[in-house]
Amino acid sequence: MEKLFYLSDLFGVGVFAITGALMAGRKSMDLFGVLVIAIITSLGGGTLRDLILDNHPVSWIRNDTYILVASLAAVATVVWVRFTRPIHETGLLIADAFGLAVFTVIGTEVALQHDAPISTAVIMGVMTGVAGGVIRDVICNEIPLIFQKEIYATACIAGSLAFIGLRELSMPWGSTAGLAMLVVLLIRLAAIRWRLSLPRFHLLDRSIR
Amino acid sequence: MEKLFYLSDLFGVGVFAITGALMAGRKSMDLFGVLVIAIITSLGGGTLRDLILDNHPVSWIRNDTYILVASLAAVATVVWVRFTRPIHETGLLIADAFGLAVFTVIGTEVALQHDAPISTAVIMGVMTGVAGGVIRDVICNEIPLIFQKEIYATACIAGSLAFIGLRELSMPWGSTAGLAMLVVLLIRLAAIRWRLSLPRFHLLDRSIR
Amino acid sequence: MEKLFYLSDLFGVGVFAITGALMAGRKSMDLFGVLVIAIITSLGGGTLRDLILDNHPVSWIRNDTYILVASLAAVATVVWVRFTRPIHETGLLIADAFGLAVFTVIGTEVALQHDAPISTAVIMGVMTGVAGGVIRDVICNEIPLIFQKEIYATACIAGSLAFIGLRELSMPWGSTAGLAMLVVLLIRLAAIRWRLSLPRFHLLDRSIR
Repeated sequence: MEKLFYLSDLFGVGVFAITGALMAGRKSMDLFGVLVIAIITSLGGGTLRDLILDNHPVSWIRNDTYILVASLAAVATVVWVRFTRPIHETGLLIADAFGLAVFTVIGTEVALQHDAPISTAVIMGVMTGVAGGVIRDVICNEIPLIFQKEIYATACIAGSLAFIGLRELSMPWGSTAGLAMLVVLLIRLAAIRWRLSLPRFHLLDRSIR
Repeated sequence: MEKLFYLSDLFGVGVFAITGALMAGRKSMDLFGVLVIAIITSLGGGTLRDLILDNHPVSWIRNDTYILVASLAAVATVVWVRFTRPIHETGLLIADAFGLAVFTVIGTEVALQHDAPISTAVIMGVMTGVAGGVIRDVICNEIPLIFQKEIYATACIAGSLAFIGLRELSMPWGSTAGLAMLVVLLIRLAAIRWRLSLPRFHLLDRSIR
Repeated sequence: MEKLFYLSDLFGVGVFAITGALMAGRKSMDLFGVLVIAIITSLGGGTLRDLILDNHPVSWIRNDTYILVASLAAVATVVWVRFTRPIHETGLLIADAFGLAVFTVIGTEVALQHDAPISTAVIMGVMTGVAGGVIRDVICNEIPLIFQKEIYATACIAGSLAFIGLRELSMPWGSTAGLAMLVVLLIRLAAIRWRLSLPRFHLLDRSIR
């Protein structure tokens, strides 16, 4: 069970690294840039969470499998794009939704282990899921997409809350985590399918600092 | 006294969250983006300070009042703008100056409690006051205003130094903090009133890396 | 020997602060902005490394010489540019390469002292060398140059690996560090001289999130 979860985590790292490598490609970065953006996208959220929770050592510091998986995913993306062009966009989005689900549950769990109150645990779940992508977008000089597009972080919030609630039922940990991940996945897939998004807040011509 | 200071801190959090929500609105973010930018603006400076000083747990991790106040301020801003349009700009600037004053004193105090030398204590005072806004601007793809506009951080530096100096006089802590806050407030209000700014450094057509 | 290394470290801080001040000048920042960007450029990489490795206290917290050197370098840059215009670009690039070499070795050494595996030690060497410049570019609203231009980080990777390898030979620490720095320097100078760069990854017209 724990093994399965560790593998899911690595899968999430790989998928997020691919989205990072693709963004780096859109900015015409060199190979080093591609690697760095891939690593930051996949490990940035968890790292930020660990720093704020004082949860040391940060996962990838002692176990270099994380860096290895992110790097391989980045290199594979470059090779793939160079030799077989089209990337299956829907496939990537679904894989990304799965990675998001794993990261959300892990982040929430880590926070709860540090006796964080519920609001903090949810924030840590969301942060683990989305902060890597936010840092990627900021470095690549884009306003983070997740603050503007379809429902993304909302899926994390729901999944994190579901995880916290289901924990009270004292089911086996695996079922709790699995159900919470399902919540993230379903919301995210529905958002992709029907292009659901949150209302936006437009503020025009104001110059308040 | 301590109660009063805690309430001032929460007031600062609320005001900074409003400036974050307004910036998010100018970027037409969705409601999640508004919340995140509001929280980062109001709690980012203190969080960065705590990470660098190794001052754990970070304030909002254990006490969810901070997140609550920031979120409520963000939601209130959206509702307010939607239903009553004009925001009283000068009122907001004055409230912001007050928040800046509180944050500066808190940041300096925390650093001194960690036996930091004076230069570090001043930096931590300034960081607590301005880093949230800097991160907000960077995420929103703007060059931070405080590096370009009227005197802002300078008010923090003066207030932080005043706090450190006044502490030597062994007055009650409340008076020391109050006077230092007054220094920040007065400089900041003078800067707003007479549009004071620091000289700029212009460097043209250079391509040094 | 240790003294020599400490002085090299301070030299690196000064050089990186100059590149920060110049970038701030290109963005027409005010004097406060120049100072902040100079300090972040010179101390940001090491600070990020220390946070991730949980290596406290962060160097400049207890020893204000670092901040002092960075600030003086920033002020000197502004004065120099104002009164004597032309900056010797090649001279600056060579000095920067030297700073990069020192920072790379220091970062690798600190990571190894924390029992990090090799991959992590290399990442920490690179991070110490380049992260300050990356943060500088992100704040100044530029896509980081080192992800796009000549070989830069690659020199760090090679130097870090050289340092790790040479350590096994149990030479005196000074020689090990010196040789590793030479590796960084030579690669970097060759890259500048012959404008060597890594292949780029171009990805056009894709809208994968």
